[in-house]
Amino acid sequence: MRESGKKFGATNSPCAACKLLRRKCAESCVFAPYFPADEPHKFANVHKVFGASNVNKMLQDLPVHQRGDAVSSIVYEANARIRDPVYGCVGAISTLQQQIDALQAQLALAQAEVVHHKMSQAASIILLPHAKPT
Amino acid sequence: MRESGKKFGATNSPCAACKLLRRKCAESCVFAPYFPADEPHKFANVHKVFGASNVNKMLQDLPVHQRGDAVSSIVYEANARIRDPVYGCVGAISTLQQQIDALQAQLALAQAEVVHHKMSQAASIILLPHAKPT
Repeated sequence: MRESGKKFGATNSPCAACKLLRRKCAESCVFAPYFPADEPHKFANVHKVFGASNVNKMLQDLPVHQRGDAVSSIVYEANARIRDPVYGCVGAISTLQQQIDALQAQLALAQAEVVHHKMSQAASIILLPHAKPT
Repeated sequence: MRESGKKFGATNSPCAACKLLRRKCAESCVFAPYFPADEPHKFANVHKVFGASNVNKMLQDLPVHQRGDAVSSIVYEANARIRDPVYGCVGAISTLQQQIDALQAQLALAQAEVVHHKMSQAASIILLPHAKPT
């Protein structure tokens, strides 16, 4: 990381990442736009799960316009792993998959009921050809 | 990690993790049961995304009977991040959430249709009290 001697932002505070890593926060710091000093836990979990150098590399490998989304997903994954050290956000995937299975079963039942009603209606029209509303 | 001098497994081969990290694979190696030598890519992606020392710590912090599930979810997350460096497995969560929204909308429609048919049926019984099948 290039050290320009000029701190990021107007406050001269190092970003949450550089503060945790106890290093100078250069103007070119890859973390500074996404890990402000007033959100220290946001970076702490990311560092604990992925490691600062891995995240630095992941962000450097992406164009700037995609880094915000990448940080959001990395923070989400890190928080999920801290909450659930065994399954992390794969636990959420599993829960959502179960919800999909349940909804698909409910939908199949409801659609079968619609078909049943339509067939009953069609049958009643055939069986009562002269019936008219009173 | 304690080095016992005795290699893990019958083949004396280091596990995929120790091979990649170019270190001796002790009998007590925390990676060896989950990263066999014949699956080198499984650990390579995990190391690239999470870092070996973070994963080592995550596994050490878990009881042995939960480590297999933790490794599966970590491998899943790492592979997802390699495939999609911006969204990782959060992309899958987003896709599943959209599927759930679509299924809930379809289910609401089907259930409304069922209610509509039931009401029509009830109305026809009231309107045609003397109608009998021919």
